[in-house]
Amino acid sequence: MHLSIIKIGGNIIDDEVKLAAFLDSFAAVPGLKILVHGGGKLATKVAEGLGIRQQLVDGRRITDGETLKVVTMVYAGTINKNIVAQLQARGCNAIGLTGADGNSIRAHKRTHPDIDYGYAGDVDSVDAAFLTALLMLDKTIVFAPITHDGKGLLLNTNADTIAQEVARGLSRSFDVSLVYSFEKGGVLLNADDDSSVLTRIGQAEYEALKAKQVIFAGMIPKLDNAFAALRSGVRRVIIGRAEELPLLLAGKAGTTVVNE
Amino acid sequence: MHLSIIKIGGNIIDDEVKLAAFLDSFAAVPGLKILVHGGGKLATKVAEGLGIRQQLVDGRRITDGETLKVVTMVYAGTINKNIVAQLQARGCNAIGLTGADGNSIRAHKRTHPDIDYGYAGDVDSVDAAFLTALLMLDKTIVFAPITHDGKGLLLNTNADTIAQEVARGLSRSFDVSLVYSFEKGGVLLNADDDSSVLTRIGQAEYEALKAKQVIFAGMIPKLDNAFAALRSGVRRVIIGRAEELPLLLAGKAGTTVVNE
Repeated sequence: MHLSIIKIGGNIIDDEVKLAAFLDSFAAVPGLKILVHGGGKLATKVAEGLGIRQQLVDGRRITDGETLKVVTMVYAGTINKNIVAQLQARGCNAIGLTGADGNSIRAHKRTHPDIDYGYAGDVDSVDAAFLTALLMLDKTIVFAPITHDGKGLLLNTNADTIAQEVARGLSRSFDVSLVYSFEKGGVLLNADDDSSVLTRIGQAEYEALKAKQVIFAGMIPKLDNAFAALRSGVRRVIIGRAEELPLLLAGKAGTTVVNE
Repeated sequence: MHLSIIKIGGNIIDDEVKLAAFLDSFAAVPGLKILVHGGGKLATKVAEGLGIRQQLVDGRRITDGETLKVVTMVYAGTINKNIVAQLQARGCNAIGLTGADGNSIRAHKRTHPDIDYGYAGDVDSVDAAFLTALLMLDKTIVFAPITHDGKGLLLNTNADTIAQEVARGLSRSFDVSLVYSFEKGGVLLNADDDSSVLTRIGQAEYEALKAKQVIFAGMIPKLDNAFAALRSGVRRVIIGRAEELPLLLAGKAGTTVVNE
């Protein structure tokens, strides 16, 4: 049975009109599906409003205790529940989850010899049986990028990683297509030219393009996640623009990452 | 099969130590169970922090658009997810829901000829089949006091009402005990004397005590909800202190509301 797992990022979440259009196309995707959403700028706005200073270490935002409270509010409350309500309005029976809900995604607080990442979670396990049961009840799962450690701690967790781990966990029971949507049309041969989308990319080509620094920055962890997903049994990984969701799923837009 | 549905209010939620003790006793309740939590003062604090003025009409807080955003954040985000994570840490496999999740509680925006209540929801229906399926998956459901109208709108909804409607919806399939916990030991014959707890109260006695103004203010909607629940098939309704949860469920503390 086919399952589509689609990750959307902040560029869609922050734009009400784009989000509504995306949810129209997501609701229309046939068959079983899971949406994983990232954070967006609202958490920063709320933190600023509440006078919480964002800690940055080497340019990375650190999830300290106060920031964890804000991302829990904004990701699991505001963003997740508004997406669920809007999908319900489109006839899509959505259920919003964090990893704590039903113990669906267990993680541990990231540790590093030098850097304190704060309340950042690295995923340990996904309860595929529970997620499968929800899908069999005709529910569309909507994940917020929050997990838990089983000891009472909520953890801020990268949405790309959640999408990959959920895809991996469910690839034993389903034929999974995993879509990473972002603000570009796919993997670009020229970062400044949005028409330079690579239709397909395999591991060897990825390594070559990475060595030539054609592929760099945020695309590297995205592709690393994609190849890890393929190695773990996910059938297809597609990277492209959320606005083109039906074309991405049909293989007519974006970059398809292949295991070769 | 027996099902315990327990409602806790702001007095427990606002107090970290009391909440932890309550969750210990809740996690230890045997059998199937559902927790419904209210709001508490955090929403007011967050609204103040964000510079959102609370609108009051005749002493009632009005859920305007900005307040709805705050209660969605705080109730469905902060409070609900922290309770779920803390229950998970106690070996209780909890799943947090709003009424939008899985379309579990559908409501409509309250209309009144004179007063605009803003985004307040009156419950229309509960999806008992879905809630039953979650219970059969050994999940403990934790409801935030937020519902939806099926048209994309989230609605602030009284937690007592949610508890009663969920109890009613599930009373066809389960032998339901409904516990309304609050800051008093039960229905008091003398509001100033916490030892004057009525052990049992029936409809006739309620009417008599209401006429004599022994029962007044916030106890009236609570008891109206309780009798409505009994009339709709709920087996037992108990009103008392959250700190005495095991005693309440054993019928050894609080006031048992009876259908006679």
